[in-house]
Amino acid sequence: MTSHLDLRPLWAATSIAVIGATERVGAMGRLPLEYLIKHGFDGFIAPVNPKGGEIFGMEAFASMASVPQHIDLALIMVPAQLVKDAVRDCADAGVNVAIVMSSGFAEVDKEGAAAQQELVDIARTKGMRIVGPNCIGSVGGAHKVLATFSPVFSSESTPLPDGRIALVSQSGALGFGALSLGLERGVPIGIAITTGNEADVTATEVAVQLAQDPDVDAVVMYVESLGNLDSLAQVAATKPIAILKAGRSAAGAEAAASHTGALASPDKVVSAALKQYGIARVDNIDELLDVASMFASERIIGGPGVGIVTTSGGSGILAVDAIEKEGLVLANLDQSTVSDLEQIVPSYGNATNPVDVTAAVMAEPGLFERCVDRLADDPAVNAIVACFAVLVGKDVDRIATALHELRDRTGLPVAAVRTGAAALAPEGAEVLKRAGVPVYPTPERAVAALRALVTANTRVSRSFNVLSPSEIPTPSPGASEKELKELLAKSGLPIPESILVSEAAQVLNAVDTVGGRAVLKAVVPGLLHKSDAGGVVLDVTTERAVKTFTTLKAMGGDVLVERFVPGGIEVLVGISGSSMGPVLTVGVGGVLTEIVASASVRLLPVDRVDIEQMISETALDQLLAGARGSQPSDRKALVTLIETLAHGVRNWPTGCELDINPVTVLERGCWVLDAAYVSPQTD
Amino acid sequence: MTSHLDLRPLWAATSIAVIGATERVGAMGRLPLEYLIKHGFDGFIAPVNPKGGEIFGMEAFASMASVPQHIDLALIMVPAQLVKDAVRDCADAGVNVAIVMSSGFAEVDKEGAAAQQELVDIARTKGMRIVGPNCIGSVGGAHKVLATFSPVFSSESTPLPDGRIALVSQSGALGFGALSLGLERGVPIGIAITTGNEADVTATEVAVQLAQDPDVDAVVMYVESLGNLDSLAQVAATKPIAILKAGRSAAGAEAAASHTGALASPDKVVSAALKQYGIARVDNIDELLDVASMFASERIIGGPGVGIVTTSGGSGILAVDAIEKEGLVLANLDQSTVSDLEQIVPSYGNATNPVDVTAAVMAEPGLFERCVDRLADDPAVNAIVACFAVLVGKDVDRIATALHELRDRTGLPVAAVRTGAAALAPEGAEVLKRAGVPVYPTPERAVAALRALVTANTRVSRSFNVLSPSEIPTPSPGASEKELKELLAKSGLPIPESILVSEAAQVLNAVDTVGGRAVLKAVVPGLLHKSDAGGVVLDVTTERAVKTFTTLKAMGGDVLVERFVPGGIEVLVGISGSSMGPVLTVGVGGVLTEIVASASVRLLPVDRVDIEQMISETALDQLLAGARGSQPSDRKALVTLIETLAHGVRNWPTGCELDINPVTVLERGCWVLDAAYVSPQTD
Repeated sequence: MTSHLDLRPLWAATSIAVIGATERVGAMGRLPLEYLIKHGFDGFIAPVNPKGGEIFGMEAFASMASVPQHIDLALIMVPAQLVKDAVRDCADAGVNVAIVMSSGFAEVDKEGAAAQQELVDIARTKGMRIVGPNCIGSVGGAHKVLATFSPVFSSESTPLPDGRIALVSQSGALGFGALSLGLERGVPIGIAITTGNEADVTATEVAVQLAQDPDVDAVVMYVESLGNLDSLAQVAATKPIAILKAGRSAAGAEAAASHTGALASPDKVVSAALKQYGIARVDNIDELLDVASMFASERIIGGPGVGIVTTSGGSGILAVDAIEKEGLVLANLDQSTVSDLEQIVPSYGNATNPVDVTAAVMAEPGLFERCVDRLADDPAVNAIVACFAVLVGKDVDRIATALHELRDRTGLPVAAVRTGAAALAPEGAEVLKRAGVPVYPTPERAVAALRALVTANTRVSRSFNVLSPSEIPTPSPGASEKELKELLAKSGLPIPESILVSEAAQVLNAVDTVGGRAVLKAVVPGLLHKSDAGGVVLDVTTERAVKTFTTLKAMGGDVLVERFVPGGIEVLVGISGSSMGPVLTVGVGGVLTEIVASASVRLLPVDRVDIEQMISETALDQLLAGARGSQPSDRKALVTLIETLAHGVRNWPTGCELDINPVTVLERGCWVLDAAYVSPQTD
Repeated sequence: MTSHLDLRPLWAATSIAVIGATERVGAMGRLPLEYLIKHGFDGFIAPVNPKGGEIFGMEAFASMASVPQHIDLALIMVPAQLVKDAVRDCADAGVNVAIVMSSGFAEVDKEGAAAQQELVDIARTKGMRIVGPNCIGSVGGAHKVLATFSPVFSSESTPLPDGRIALVSQSGALGFGALSLGLERGVPIGIAITTGNEADVTATEVAVQLAQDPDVDAVVMYVESLGNLDSLAQVAATKPIAILKAGRSAAGAEAAASHTGALASPDKVVSAALKQYGIARVDNIDELLDVASMFASERIIGGPGVGIVTTSGGSGILAVDAIEKEGLVLANLDQSTVSDLEQIVPSYGNATNPVDVTAAVMAEPGLFERCVDRLADDPAVNAIVACFAVLVGKDVDRIATALHELRDRTGLPVAAVRTGAAALAPEGAEVLKRAGVPVYPTPERAVAALRALVTANTRVSRSFNVLSPSEIPTPSPGASEKELKELLAKSGLPIPESILVSEAAQVLNAVDTVGGRAVLKAVVPGLLHKSDAGGVVLDVTTERAVKTFTTLKAMGGDVLVERFVPGGIEVLVGISGSSMGPVLTVGVGGVLTEIVASASVRLLPVDRVDIEQMISETALDQLLAGARGSQPSDRKALVTLIETLAHGVRNWPTGCELDINPVTVLERGCWVLDAAYVSPQTD
């Protein structure tokens, strides 16, 4: 993990230059100055404008070269054609980070992309980092860096960002929109940074450095693309991170050449990768802000067990539905807890989880407090969701105080659900806000935020206990099935004996050699789905051998004569590429591949525990266990095969696809029956 | 459809009695009087209290008998033990509807349930309807009926409900909580009614009568249980209805005896039934309110095609993701539309759907308006989603006005998405509110609300073109497979010939009679999953017949010798019961039943179009079409079989289960290979 925080000026600059500064109303270059002054940036501001003079009463400099002191952060806000010179001036002046806000680069055309690359090349010569171009800048931090032209800060209603949550967004407009929505909702976002075209600095890199800042408790992100997450994953092990990844549908629409490609859709890989790394994936901006509130309140949760206290049966049922949907656990209360609760809860309420104290809380002070206290002491309860729908005024105030005290006493994550107008109890809302107890309008949103916290607390071990299996050499492009299988066999994968036959005269002998019952396969370069094309004939004995050979030979290649392995559960094992690294796919294989479409994916590397989990997530779990009274299959052998393969391909080039379909799993042992390889070049 | 509106006093009473009226602060019986007076109920109020005198300056009556005029609506707010007398007094006085707000009935214990039934019995003698007990009452309507003790209306911040949307809730607390949240968000809910224990009046019945009121445009509901929806379905054909049905998880936890029961989980049946009836199902209170806003704006949508205009690329991508998720269609724009848009949209924007006008709208007045106008004229566009994230002040105002005008000009549903603080542009918000254009914080919520509108516009034909197939007699409880198949065969279902054999000596002859290749099945009463238990042996010829017979006979019953039907795609067809009526299940059958777990459900009746749709929703679609190069199977024969069955069982008693698994579908024809029946009594 790097601890080099060269992007820190984005939220902690003490000197800011604005290239293209002006007082002219309506000009982009006026706004950061206006915001910095209004919100009291406590460092040095250098307006830069060729005309010099004064801007907002400050000395304006004709060029970066004439600025008399070191500049941490430069905002480049000049027309596209002037950006290159501005970047050079900044780099020459020793600026640490330049935010290029100007548009007109890679988002327009190829020439723009080339111009954008030039900016990076110039900056790199002096070690300057570039954010953008085509971004809206950054805001926040202790020094009140308002390095943006976002209109959000021209409104008197927008407060200065304040809090220990950092927001990073590839989209400028959506990022600042989410920020303003969050500030209005009381989400404690203290820093917001947008990365635009990402010529140099990526959102992931910003997130990594933010998470290393002791003043940042958690990071929430909006991204449209994700690169390698290794460094972020390491940070995620210490601080909660949540990501809204857009483009699910576009991802799904991509064509896929192989079964593995079809099953490991890019969006499925994103979900799997984020979960592997303990990063919460959220589905929309509401949820991103909800999760930010939860992360601001809590970083640690002991497990997935949720205790619910409600004043309305309906909210309780909805909370239980949400817990099931999100994969959390409705805490199974100890009998002693239930007995104690029965003494507190009215007879027409419910003393088991979800605990329904009913509207009796309005008449009986202390009822809610005693219930929630007792519930929180149950060892199965890792978090509390407290739902109160129609309560008003002092009833809400009392519950708010109780939740505040509960959280301080127990350290448990507490989420309040108020399905009712905020105006019904403004003081209670204030108590909860001061206490840092997150408040949601529905049980579903509270439970989703808790689920994100549970994910962020999933510490997937990324250190592996590997039986140091040998590396599998990278197949040559266009490798035949025979060549591929020889490669795999050498690495210890179980491959049935086979003989490549090109003349009818050799067939009988070959069938005999592999044991008298053979599979005959057409070996035709480029034919991926041999079965569909009629290129595979099973269980061929010497009687049928010559005739079958002749038919297959007519397809245009040679014929592979392979020992026939009868029966077994058919499994697909695949390797493919993604922007985040190589992906392993394990699922139901053979003729059922598309029909069942049950597969699990993971980023490599994986260990046996991961592989066991992958199998459990698919219909293979049931198939291997022996459906409908049949004998169980050798799951352990399958896990070993997958492990050997997953580690063996660790140095294969990015983007290659290997499709092993099927592996057949018998009562004892398993066998690779078919394999196909697509090299990155031909993909 | 009934047009009898006997529940109308709940929202349109002109005379209200409060039994248990008092001025005492803190007493339940004070609140409705306080609310009725404060909000200006324009009818007659009769406080009823044995002490008589004056309450809030109005004459209080010692009993209902002494109230001098007819009472439409009575609120019974006395302790549980006094409710019975109060109900009798109201019934005797000719009250139309009594709301029993008191708790202490079926929600407590069996005695309470019995007492509750007594109330209904008393009311029925005089034709009075009872709402509750254990409910929070109703509010709204032109006369300002505030027939509730909900604390929501004790807050000065709560406005009088106003609008053409009606809300019905089985939960009182959640219902009034949702109402107050909705009113705060500007959702035009004009009527809210809670039904509590539903001793007499159900939420569904209330919804039916509300929907018949010309002042109500749409109904949204929260329910925990759903009964027969036939009458609601008829209303849904004229006005939009949305339902939040709680208890997904509880439903899923129920044990299921048969495959059909397992595949047709109660929650899946609810989803299917609501969709069949054109009723939108929503997942949480946020969505219920979002959909209410949409229904308040629009009742008609021409199709699922959505056009997106956005000022932020990010919001556009999220909207596209949401359209795919919700099953709507990203409108495929005509080339002429794209050409025209290319003339308007900046080069760094996007002139195809989603149309990205970029932040250039801030600098160029009219840009947004021209884009959205041109987009709306494309014939593929049935609705517009307009996203604007960081815009403030006059930019939002301008867009708001444009959307308002667009909606008036085109009549298209328009949803605005403002992912940003409301305070950034309060006037724009006001313009949209006045125009009745619904505003959502995220694209996902706007698209989900549009999806509900599309569902509400799905006019599923509930009139059927049936080949008047014969009715299948109800099987006797414990009917054997043989008896069951004879019953089905008589109704024209394709059943292979079979002979029941109880002596080894008859077996050879039987196998010969059915064609020389037979299936032998153990016929053991109560054995549902014969295959799992080893009770089915396929393809038995005369050689193996006696030995196989002996083995099966040892399982304790007789043996059925049936003609062997080789090959084919195996299908499950099942009939089961639900609170909403009988359910048809069609899915992948045979050994793959649980592994693939791909099934579709519908409430009966269905026609061929429904059955075709059901097949298309499952993996059968692909299997029947001929996966991996195999021949297609006789889908038409399967549809006919299912149609014959679905109509044949129309008079079977509620709750019986029929499990036909598998039907095997061949290249020509299909055959019922196994059938099991569970009568309601033994279930």
